Amino acid sequence: MARAPVTVRGEQTRRRLLEAAEEVFGELGFRRASIAEIVRRAGVAQGTFYLYFDSKEEIFRALVRHMSHELRKFIAMAVASLQDRLEIEREGYRAFFRFVLQHRFLYRIVLESQFVDEEVYREYYRRLAEGYARGLARAMEAGQIRRMDPETLAYCLMGIAHLLGMRWVLWENREPPEEVIEAAMDFIRHGIALPPKGAADASREGG
Amino acid sequence: MARAPVTVRGEQTRRRLLEAAEEVFGELGFRRASIAEIVRRAGVAQGTFYLYFDSKEEIFRALVRHMSHELRKFIAMAVASLQDRLEIEREGYRAFFRFVLQHRFLYRIVLESQFVDEEVYREYYRRLAEGYARGLARAMEAGQIRRMDPETLAYCLMGIAHLLGMRWVLWENREPPEEVIEAAMDFIRHGIALPPKGAADASREGG
Repeated sequence: MARAPVTVRGEQTRRRLLEAAEEVFGELGFRRASIAEIVRRAGVAQGTFYLYFDSKEEIFRALVRHMSHELRKFIAMAVASLQDRLEIEREGYRAFFRFVLQHRFLYRIVLESQFVDEEVYREYYRRLAEGYARGLARAMEAGQIRRMDPETLAYCLMGIAHLLGMRWVLWENREPPEEVIEAAMDFIRHGIALPPKGAADASREGG
Repeated sequence: MARAPVTVRGEQTRRRLLEAAEEVFGELGFRRASIAEIVRRAGVAQGTFYLYFDSKEEIFRALVRHMSHELRKFIAMAVASLQDRLEIEREGYRAFFRFVLQHRFLYRIVLESQFVDEEVYREYYRRLAEGYARGLARAMEAGQIRRMDPETLAYCLMGIAHLLGMRWVLWENREPPEEVIEAAMDFIRHGIALPPKGAADASREGG
């Protein structure tokens, strides 16, 4: 069990440990990573580590949850002022690609988490999907996009971002080119758009 | 360098080794897997292994390529008699989910390949994407679906299958429920469908 730090300084130290852990687990993988290396990079004493985490497993789990939280916060801030769902999709994708560019070990750490703690791995995707599906359901209720199963649509949209992020950010170390984002958005826009006015009645029961 | 077996029996032995390797790497992971365990499960002598592969790394690389080839063949057979691109998408997805159900270590082995040989990992996705994009480009030329960048569309569609396969086949050990496949297909159909007749001219330059 991690103890939640109550002071501002405690919170800062915990964050420093997590940031060091992101580098160490990302570069070395879970097995080769060590608490000694994490505290070395964080610049704190080994004893301090145990004020926050009990073990290598525990800081790894905390790291996956921390990255999940940071990613969702980063995307939420990027789309906070937007109303139109297609705008939200576009800017949310862009934010995701920027985040992956800044956190080049995100994919690796999340993927490896399935071998360390399957539950934390599933939770990473489930939390993303739940938030995503809630936003999509609101847009459906507001009549901005077609009605369909929000959870399935969330997984579809996460899958698109996942593979484009792999193809461009991980492999080419850059955000996807503008024309790639536009092509994906064109596909998504048609996929989620309301039916044209005249066709509305005919297709309302189709989904 | 692997030597290609020329006899039918040689081909069968190679395949037995690859099938054993799929289980062993899938269950134990690359690091804990051993040639001794692979030959034990394949029921061949250790010396026989070296007629086909030089090392654990080499059979692992061959396994990723073999699974990629088997997956593409499996999907190609499932859609061989179909003409309509949406039918091809639907049956291709279904075949993918069935294949993952039958090869429960596919994801794990492909994911781990990035840490063993990054090139073989990228090749796995690139080959899938290339074949997918070729089929999509043909459907665009035949006027079955809208024109857009075939490679980007291929990665989008692969991403959808990837996450739905994770969510349902890996996590629930079943093919996605019918309504999930229909919801995904509804999204994809609208995403790739030709514009309605009246709107064709207006949207032709839109993508």
